[in-house]
Amino acid sequence: MNIRLYNARILDLDESHTVRKGEVRVSDGKIAEVLYDGENMPEDRIFDREIDCKGNLLMRGFNDAHTHSAMTFLRSLADDKPTPNWLEEDIFPNEAKLTDDDIADFQRLAIMEYVSAGIVSAMDMYLRPYVTAEVFAAAGMRAVIVSGLNNFTSSLSELEDQFDRLNRYDPLISFKAGIHAEYTTSREILESLSGFVREKKTGLFCHASETESEVLGCIERYGLPPVKFLASLGLFDFGGGIYHGVHVTDEEIDILREKRVYTVTNPASNCKLASGIAPLKKLYDRGVKLAIGTDGPASNNCLDMFREMYLASVLCKIREKDAAGIDASVILDMAVKGSAGCMGLEDSGLIKAGCPADIIMVDMARPNMQPVNNIVKNLVYSGQTANIKMTMVSGRILYYNGEYDLGFDPEEIIRRCGERTDKIVSG
Amino acid sequence: MNIRLYNARILDLDESHTVRKGEVRVSDGKIAEVLYDGENMPEDRIFDREIDCKGNLLMRGFNDAHTHSAMTFLRSLADDKPTPNWLEEDIFPNEAKLTDDDIADFQRLAIMEYVSAGIVSAMDMYLRPYVTAEVFAAAGMRAVIVSGLNNFTSSLSELEDQFDRLNRYDPLISFKAGIHAEYTTSREILESLSGFVREKKTGLFCHASETESEVLGCIERYGLPPVKFLASLGLFDFGGGIYHGVHVTDEEIDILREKRVYTVTNPASNCKLASGIAPLKKLYDRGVKLAIGTDGPASNNCLDMFREMYLASVLCKIREKDAAGIDASVILDMAVKGSAGCMGLEDSGLIKAGCPADIIMVDMARPNMQPVNNIVKNLVYSGQTANIKMTMVSGRILYYNGEYDLGFDPEEIIRRCGERTDKIVSG
Repeated sequence: MNIRLYNARILDLDESHTVRKGEVRVSDGKIAEVLYDGENMPEDRIFDREIDCKGNLLMRGFNDAHTHSAMTFLRSLADDKPTPNWLEEDIFPNEAKLTDDDIADFQRLAIMEYVSAGIVSAMDMYLRPYVTAEVFAAAGMRAVIVSGLNNFTSSLSELEDQFDRLNRYDPLISFKAGIHAEYTTSREILESLSGFVREKKTGLFCHASETESEVLGCIERYGLPPVKFLASLGLFDFGGGIYHGVHVTDEEIDILREKRVYTVTNPASNCKLASGIAPLKKLYDRGVKLAIGTDGPASNNCLDMFREMYLASVLCKIREKDAAGIDASVILDMAVKGSAGCMGLEDSGLIKAGCPADIIMVDMARPNMQPVNNIVKNLVYSGQTANIKMTMVSGRILYYNGEYDLGFDPEEIIRRCGERTDKIVSG
Repeated sequence: MNIRLYNARILDLDESHTVRKGEVRVSDGKIAEVLYDGENMPEDRIFDREIDCKGNLLMRGFNDAHTHSAMTFLRSLADDKPTPNWLEEDIFPNEAKLTDDDIADFQRLAIMEYVSAGIVSAMDMYLRPYVTAEVFAAAGMRAVIVSGLNNFTSSLSELEDQFDRLNRYDPLISFKAGIHAEYTTSREILESLSGFVREKKTGLFCHASETESEVLGCIERYGLPPVKFLASLGLFDFGGGIYHGVHVTDEEIDILREKRVYTVTNPASNCKLASGIAPLKKLYDRGVKLAIGTDGPASNNCLDMFREMYLASVLCKIREKDAAGIDASVILDMAVKGSAGCMGLEDSGLIKAGCPADIIMVDMARPNMQPVNNIVKNLVYSGQTANIKMTMVSGRILYYNGEYDLGFDPEEIIRRCGERTDKIVSG
């Protein structure tokens, strides 16, 4: 499939965040050519599809570095409740009822939400990694699947099997070793996993330092806070990432930097569950690698990286009592390049030949994007999912002008998700 | 113009926030009839327009209780800077260059943004109230214009003139007495204004207790914090409203309740400028009347009540360290009924015969609104401007399926706003 996207503004996430007019040509899942206005335009190509971008913006799409896609079915089910009640009364009992088919449909609904919001890849932790791989690959969306190993579900041998099989399954799919969290995984499992991580020279991903009580629990159990404890077992010897990282200590921040472990910030979830505001500025200033994720729809409630970028920035200003905070360009980089790096994807943030064609078109004609005093700040502070006109993953247009091309019928998925949710929630 | 909106779900903001299937008939700017499924449907009417809502949601639109519409031109101009620099380097010098025509076009751009976001009315404080009145009335959007009297612009006699003329100007337009803030208005002006407010038995509106330094300044000048000081002059004897109210004391909270003064919360602005998190739960628990506003695009940066509702809720959870926070239904009511009450508009929040036809249609087929475990929480926690399919003000459809009907050419306004901004900012 050869696609030509012409009459565009092209935003490269390089140091200067340059915007230039030109066109992008896509072939075989990659960017084949980028031609800027004034350059020689070879006109001899034949394209399967040519799209007039009408001056709208092309850029690398958002990478969602932490989510639980199938939790769409829990959206709005249990909001405005204290967190322990939320988990025990609403989340765990309903998740226990899920079939593989439920999970597949709830993930398809999430994929609709991702692509309509300009998200090109998701780092997904959930039950049934093989279902996830099948669903995402069939829809054409990129997924990095993380195991959520813990005392109650899955095992190290299953993880090893997933690691081998899912990293060879499909070019859109990869797999990373992960545990749910320190507080749900025994020391015995963690020690075995440490052997695996070091044998494969691979990073380890997990929820960590999300809440104060979790940190206190870990200190009670092991005399150390979670990041320090997990690092002491060698689990971060080859990097990886922690989700949330709201309550990390200064010493742990040094560990994260030294071990090149990403902190994936999930500001909407941290707000909804009153977990706190992550020390993003300190993490950034000290050189910790940063990424952004939505978390799942049960704790967000939507899958919208515009919301996450906005929140990451303004919560930092509130926490630091400083309107300067972190510059919007850094935040945008986190949501695209930082997240890609965390997920093990190509992370240049550039629109140039040879890069994966994971491209979004941002509608600049909506009033919230006008005037254009600063396009990056427009994206971070006024950008909305309504501005997403097109989402392309690996050269395939999955969403364009409100229409989906995901290999399933969107109306049918919405209908089925409604029925499945009613059955689970009332059952 | 008789319009029939059929095959809808209708959300009434009554105590139970009921949703029922039915249709709404609109005539002469009012809701003429609401017919629910199962009721006798008179079919003898002739309509100018019939719209199949396809099961989407009809509800009262959002009322934006605090904004400076013309500040669209400052969007993204001066973000990520300490607040004093922001005002003195970027805002004031550029505002000084504005012509009436500039203001009119920048307001038209804001009106596009309001209606595409489901906002049916705006309480606007800015230079040139007569320009504002003309622009909003011509576009068909409702505006409550508030004077921003201060030591540098306008005068009490101008305010009196505006009060008389703008309250008789057009059914879509009304006017409220306002000062910019205590710190920009002399005691002499405030005392004269107090006479006017009591003569007209009318409320007084102003920025108040937005920042800590503002509160400290007022205490230094008068020995009292702003709300207490303004109340001591009798300025709140007939109610009114304060914008922001981030740093109000307990005693001031009692004054706000007793005087029936609204607190208009502006969470995005309070975040961007690092002003702090307003004590929303305390205000609510103590019975203060609450409304929500976007503030202007210089300090937000977009005009999106979904963002404000979301932030109002989650910042409360962060401040209180309690995921229960304030229920989403209360937040939704603030953005519709609370704001309407603050602005002196009909505030039942009901879709019923006789009510103003200020109605929005919310697209329930986008994935972020599915499944529907709780429609109110979907609106507050996952709702986005992308969900707005239609915005009707006073029975006239101003926005439908991405198209505007505002009496001007949207593309032309975007082009002109770009040119005007470039000229001002570079000039």
